[in-house]
Order: sequence, then C-alpha cells, then structure tokens
Amino acid sequence: VAIAGLGLVGGSLARALSAAGYRVIGLDQAPVLRQARRARAIATAATSLAAALRESDVLVLAAPPRANLVMLREAARLSSPRLVITDVGSVKTPIVQAAARLRLRRFVGGHPLAGTERSGFAASRATLFAGRSWVLTPAPSTAPAATRLVARLARDAGARPRRLRAAEHDRAVAFLSHVPQLVSWALFEAARRDRTSARRLGMAGPGFRDMTRLARSPRGLWRQILAQNRREVSRALLAFQRALRRKA
Amino acid sequence: VAIAGLGLVGGSLARALSAAGYRVIGLDQAPVLRQARRARAIATAATSLAAALRESDVLVLAAPPRANLVMLREAARLSSPRLVITDVGSVKTPIVQAAARLRLRRFVGGHPLAGTERSGFAASRATLFAGRSWVLTPAPSTAPAATRLVARLARDAGARPRRLRAAEHDRAVAFLSHVPQLVSWALFEAARRDRTSARRLGMAGPGFRDMTRLARSPRGLWRQILAQNRREVSRALLAFQRALRRKA
Repeated sequence: VAIAGLGLVGGSLARALSAAGYRVIGLDQAPVLRQARRARAIATAATSLAAALRESDVLVLAAPPRANLVMLREAARLSSPRLVITDVGSVKTPIVQAAARLRLRRFVGGHPLAGTERSGFAASRATLFAGRSWVLTPAPSTAPAATRLVARLARDAGARPRRLRAAEHDRAVAFLSHVPQLVSWALFEAARRDRTSARRLGMAGPGFRDMTRLARSPRGLWRQILAQNRREVSRALLAFQRALRRKA
Repeated sequence: VAIAGLGLVGGSLARALSAAGYRVIGLDQAPVLRQARRARAIATAATSLAAALRESDVLVLAAPPRANLVMLREAARLSSPRLVITDVGSVKTPIVQAAARLRLRRFVGGHPLAGTERSGFAASRATLFAGRSWVLTPAPSTAPAATRLVARLARDAGARPRRLRAAEHDRAVAFLSHVPQLVSWALFEAARRDRTSARRLGMAGPGFRDMTRLARSPRGLWRQILAQNRREVSRALLAFQRALRRKA
C-alpha cells in the first residue's frame, strides 16, 4: 500500500496498516519520511509518486484535497490498470467526478470520520480509526473488487466501512463536520474579541473547551475542504442559523 | 452548611463538603433527600427552609434561578443576622440586586463553572469542582467576612475562587457558556431536521459529539438562565453571528 501524505490521517493509516501486517510505502517530504521510518509506520520511503507506484497494489491519497486531485491525475497517467486508488478527503463529489472523467474504474472515494484538531505525522496514532465510520463512495462504474479491497483496508485499520453516495456524504458532513468547524471558530473568536470575556477565557468550563477544541484545526486545510463543499456548507449553515433563531 | 437543592451542583457540593468534614443539611424533595442520605452526601435532611436554617451558619441556594430568588426572600425573613447566604446560579446580576434590595450584607453571589450536560443528584460527584473556577461576586456593601467564608467553602470543595463584578461575570458567561449552549442545541437540531444528515448521525466523529454534548442539558433550567441574562446573551449572540459570517 502506498500512502501519499503522512499527516494525521495518512500517518495514522500507515501505522495501523503496518501493525496489521501490510507493507506500507510512504510518500511525503524527506523529514516526515524519516520520522515515519523511525516510528516503523512505513517500510519504505518514496520520493516520487512514480517510485511509490512501482511496488504498490493500492494508492491512498492522504494529502490536502487539492493536492489529492493533482496526484489523482498523475496516478492515472502513471499507473497500471490494476492499481486500486482511494483517498481519505473530507469532500467526495469533486474527486469522484475527477476519477470518472479520468475513467478510473478502480478508484473508490473514501473518508474516515476520525479527525481531531491536531495535524501532522507527530499527531498520528495507530488507533485513530478504532470503531469509527469510514465512508466509501463507489460510483456505479466502480469495479466491485476495488471497493471490496478498500473496505478491507478500512476494516484492517480498525474502522467500520459504510457505503454512501458521494452527494449524500457531502450533505451529511456539511451538518456533522463542516458547519461544526465554522461554529467552533466563530465561538472562539467572538469570546476572544469581547474585552470582558477575553480576559476570562481561563475560567471557562468544560463545555466551552469542548466546543472550541476544533478551533485549533489547521486553517489552510479547512479552507480547501469548505471551498470544495461550498454549496452543502451554505445550505447547512442556513439551517443552523434558522435553528439558532428558534432557540434564542 | 445548609444546601437548598441537591441536583448536579448542589448534590456535588454536598458530597464534596461532607467529605471535607462539614456537617451538611440538605433541603430538597423527600426521595432526593433519601438518596443523599444513603450516599452520605448530607448528615441531616430538612423539609423546610426554616428547619434547615435553625442549625446552619451558611445557606447555599442551589435550586434553579427562579426558585433561588424565592428562597432568598424567605431566608431574609427567617434568618438570624449572622447567616451567610450564597448561591451557585449561572447569572449573578438579578440575585445580587435582589440581595441588595433585601439589605442582605452577608449574601455573596457565587457561580462554580463546573456544570455538565447531566442533571439531578444521580449525576453528582464529589470531584465536580476540582480545579474549576468558582466566581464570587460580592457587592461593595458585602461583609468581607462573608466573602471569606464562601471563598473557603469553594476552596474546600476543590475549586479556585475568583472575585468578579456581577455584570462582568454575566457578560463573560454569555460568551463562555450561554451562547455555546444555544449553539449546541442549534447544531444538533439542524443535523436532526435534515433528512440526509439525520439518517447519518451515527457516523459523526468526535468533533460533532463534543459540540452537541450540551444539547442534552435540561431545557427548563436553561430557559430560566437565558431569560435572566437576556441582554448579555443577545449581545454575545450577535457577536457570534458576526464572527460566523467572517469565517464562512
């Protein structure tokens, strides 16, 4: 298994699959690859996608969403027709459509619902996926064997694979993940901008701390996620604001 | 110490102070008093405020906000001038002003920032206040000895007492507690009303679960809290909505 991007999710997957007996090839920047080798999260370090694919049956795209789209096109050019490709991105419609345009019948969109506010290989751990949902979004044209293989990877990482249509996934995560992320930022920023509450942030109880935990999530990554799911996020945000008016 | 109301906060305080060697007199409905006696959270059960005050040096009002205001007036009529009175309510201006009108120089407003979404004596535990802030809002006319006594109670319960003006407290908790409560309800309700996300609530990750934990908080109690702090909550809600527009 080649994993491109060894951040929180890719690094955790590398650890989990190596622990489960897979031979994992990592692709990332040199310092990250060194860390991953030292942690025995990967067996081999690759410095190009071409090199990583030479020995792989599966490619997992685990970089930020835009980089995943770039690598998908590159993999389509490079790879043998037998290579199964999946990704772990938070929005599924754009990459599923890109795979369809590239006629990649062995691409299976995926999304483990297992993030935290932390990021980078240093935050990764083999148990990140334990008991979590791992959504798979095969298209009607996707080869069933490819979907089965990716479902097995997810299960071997400790997660529970669930099939969903890409559009349905993107609608659901707008409510369950993307709007909560925006709200967490806004709660923290409003409390920090008010002079009185800014001076008293330290006295906040566990409720506030839980609700602003996500505010520490990496902004750049999230900007890409929210941009990719803009329509569903706008819709869910309106629904949230209506619900808030009913409560207040 | 008489504690009127043995719910999550009052019950936890009874447990913590009994463990610290105080003689605690509980006032609540008979079934709750029986539970509290069995748990050794209280030494004696009282069935009226008059009976509870006969043997007490301190009265802690730990019922919902409106009931606390009623008991404050009753205690002012009944009590000896030596009785120290405090409360644990989430909004401080109304009860501090009521105490001033009643000329209670030994009343000290208090608020431990230690709630959870659970409620009732069954959810109480002696460690609820460990390391938490416990705001005290003495007025300029409050007897310093009364403030010192209540600060000692807070410390003996494991908390860190901090003095704040009532208005400053109410402003800060609007941002740190009351708006987060409204937002938690709205996030959960929006996700539940959308047909697609409602079917997929079970796949939500830890972020959504943390952010909607407070949605299980008792509504009746919260309606009273929000009504008592309406002005500050409206202001903080507007600030939150502005911050949300900047992020989205």
